Amino acid sequence: MSLQQIPIIATSSEGKLSGNAPPLLREIAEHLRNLLDSGRPAAIDLKGLPLTPHDLDWLRSQLGSGEVVATIHASGESTVSETSFPGVWWITHCNEGGAVVAILIEINLVPDIVRAHPDDVRGGLESLETRLGTG
Amino acid sequence: MSLQQIPIIATSSEGKLSGNAPPLLREIAEHLRNLLDSGRPAAIDLKGLPLTPHDLDWLRSQLGSGEVVATIHASGESTVSETSFPGVWWITHCNEGGAVVAILIEINLVPDIVRAHPDDVRGGLESLETRLGTG
Repeated sequence: MSLQQIPIIATSSEGKLSGNAPPLLREIAEHLRNLLDSGRPAAIDLKGLPLTPHDLDWLRSQLGSGEVVATIHASGESTVSETSFPGVWWITHCNEGGAVVAILIEINLVPDIVRAHPDDVRGGLESLETRLGTG
Repeated sequence: MSLQQIPIIATSSEGKLSGNAPPLLREIAEHLRNLLDSGRPAAIDLKGLPLTPHDLDWLRSQLGSGEVVATIHASGESTVSETSFPGVWWITHCNEGGAVVAILIEINLVPDIVRAHPDDVRGGLESLETRLGTG
């Protein structure tokens, strides 16, 4: 086998579109329709799909950028970017070491990670009332 | 009148607490209680109140910082910061020249400016479907 015949697998799979990304646009459109018709949100776990880095780049550029970018510092940093399609959010979760552990597309009026949860609101109110001497 | 007797009004009003800020913590607690009990959000327009810059600093430090920070690039930049009390958001709106035109405290599960509005979602879906040839 000559050097020319040895396939450089990593480069070729990373550099090419697999064909798995375009159907996701159709899936996103269906989820948007569901969101409008029934209020039901959805999320697509991109790390769980057979997508190359090139697929991810293509998808990201197809979705474009919107007005809102949010960062959430919990255990590790998460980034939520609105795409050019309102209600479609590109979400990246990193662990404490900064490694990307999840890439999601969420179809929702508000990304769930940005929403305050009532139990947390109640806990915060209790500490505020304690501070004010009204709790 | 000696120089000692001339009041330096600008410095004294900017450098002092007016006494108008502490009652706002109590108002925020009431709004949080309403949010939990009835789901009703509220906003306090800080620029519309007789608060000194020192009052604003004091209030900001009393509220502390939470996990979420969002920036919104529309006409001018807006910044939404979660405080240490979930459901209490510190919001600054700037105009296109970068001047602060509004400072608000919003008491809401999700700050309204971050939420995608259904009409915009519908518009985005229509352009996505047109691109996909399914519209």
